[in-house]
Amino acid sequence: MQGLSCGTSRIVGCRFSVYPMTDNFVEVIKGALEEVDSSKVWQQTDDVSTLIRGRSEHVFDVAKAIFVHAAKTGVHVVFNGTFSIGCPGDSDADTYMSEDDVRLNEQSSQKEQVEVASQFALYPLNNPDYMQIIADQKEVAEKHGTFTKGVHYASRLDGDANDVFKTLEEAFVNTSKTKDQSHVTMTAAISANSPSKKDK
Amino acid sequence: MQGLSCGTSRIVGCRFSVYPMTDNFVEVIKGALEEVDSSKVWQQTDDVSTLIRGRSEHVFDVAKAIFVHAAKTGVHVVFNGTFSIGCPGDSDADTYMSEDDVRLNEQSSQKEQVEVASQFALYPLNNPDYMQIIADQKEVAEKHGTFTKGVHYASRLDGDANDVFKTLEEAFVNTSKTKDQSHVTMTAAISANSPSKKDK
Repeated sequence: MQGLSCGTSRIVGCRFSVYPMTDNFVEVIKGALEEVDSSKVWQQTDDVSTLIRGRSEHVFDVAKAIFVHAAKTGVHVVFNGTFSIGCPGDSDADTYMSEDDVRLNEQSSQKEQVEVASQFALYPLNNPDYMQIIADQKEVAEKHGTFTKGVHYASRLDGDANDVFKTLEEAFVNTSKTKDQSHVTMTAAISANSPSKKDK
Repeated sequence: MQGLSCGTSRIVGCRFSVYPMTDNFVEVIKGALEEVDSSKVWQQTDDVSTLIRGRSEHVFDVAKAIFVHAAKTGVHVVFNGTFSIGCPGDSDADTYMSEDDVRLNEQSSQKEQVEVASQFALYPLNNPDYMQIIADQKEVAEKHGTFTKGVHYASRLDGDANDVFKTLEEAFVNTSKTKDQSHVTMTAAISANSPSKKDK
């Protein structure tokens, strides 16, 4: 089970998939991957998802870049994944923690303007105050101008992909730095170019 | 944030999306929905996801049926969602808890044979023993013959969609019945007809 193989350090991981709703989804994904420099994260892909692990800033940098470069094609693309930190277990890829903090893909991601709708949920594990910790992150989203509303089991963000990812990163990192909080996960579904009418 | 609007009762919810990787994804989704009887769950769809809530058996019945009927088209289809029970907050749709336990879509789902690969993770909230509770569910998956291996942050299941959903349901319900365990969430990504080589 997941308990048997996740990290002991403050390494951040993200297990995610990017779903382009098109017949040539393979080309869209491969094209996006080619534009992203993922040399500062440990990466593993199987037939269900991709896992990246490393410093928080690089995990968010790479996740965002892959999504943005897929979404800029104009195809309906969804990113769906779970970020994790502090999971008790092994410490694979801890060497990646010694990378510097320069984000390799930020510049190219910032060049793209992709409007997205996102639903995310924070799970601070093993903490009796978890509901308050979650509620506190609403302010982060409001500060970034991305918060739309709470929905069942999640919060909704809308805006530019760069702003939405920034919000998610800050909410996640804030939560992971809460006193006595070790293990935190965060799910996020981020959708671009949906033909559905927006229901904010 | 999610804390402000989720259920107080033992109502189960699932916020999920079905992603058909094809140009006619809208038709695949609509076609699947037309074949599913969702009258025993409360349902709400927006541009990012669909939310169904009700008795555990009907939530799993409807989620599975929508996925199976989309996947039987042969298109690469992924179900990605989060199941939840015991989230403190409101109790919308509690009237659906008075439905009987007869699953409306089981028969039609069982007629289809769809091979799937799944990665799922359990999150028992506010419980110091959460890692052990998670590890205990490995036995459920082994009993159903679907357990393949633990991966970072998740467990991998392979097999027929009906067996995989049965495993997920049992692991989730078992966890929710653990002593003193109120709030549990479970993420699941379930993939069918992927062109990628299986990497079990």
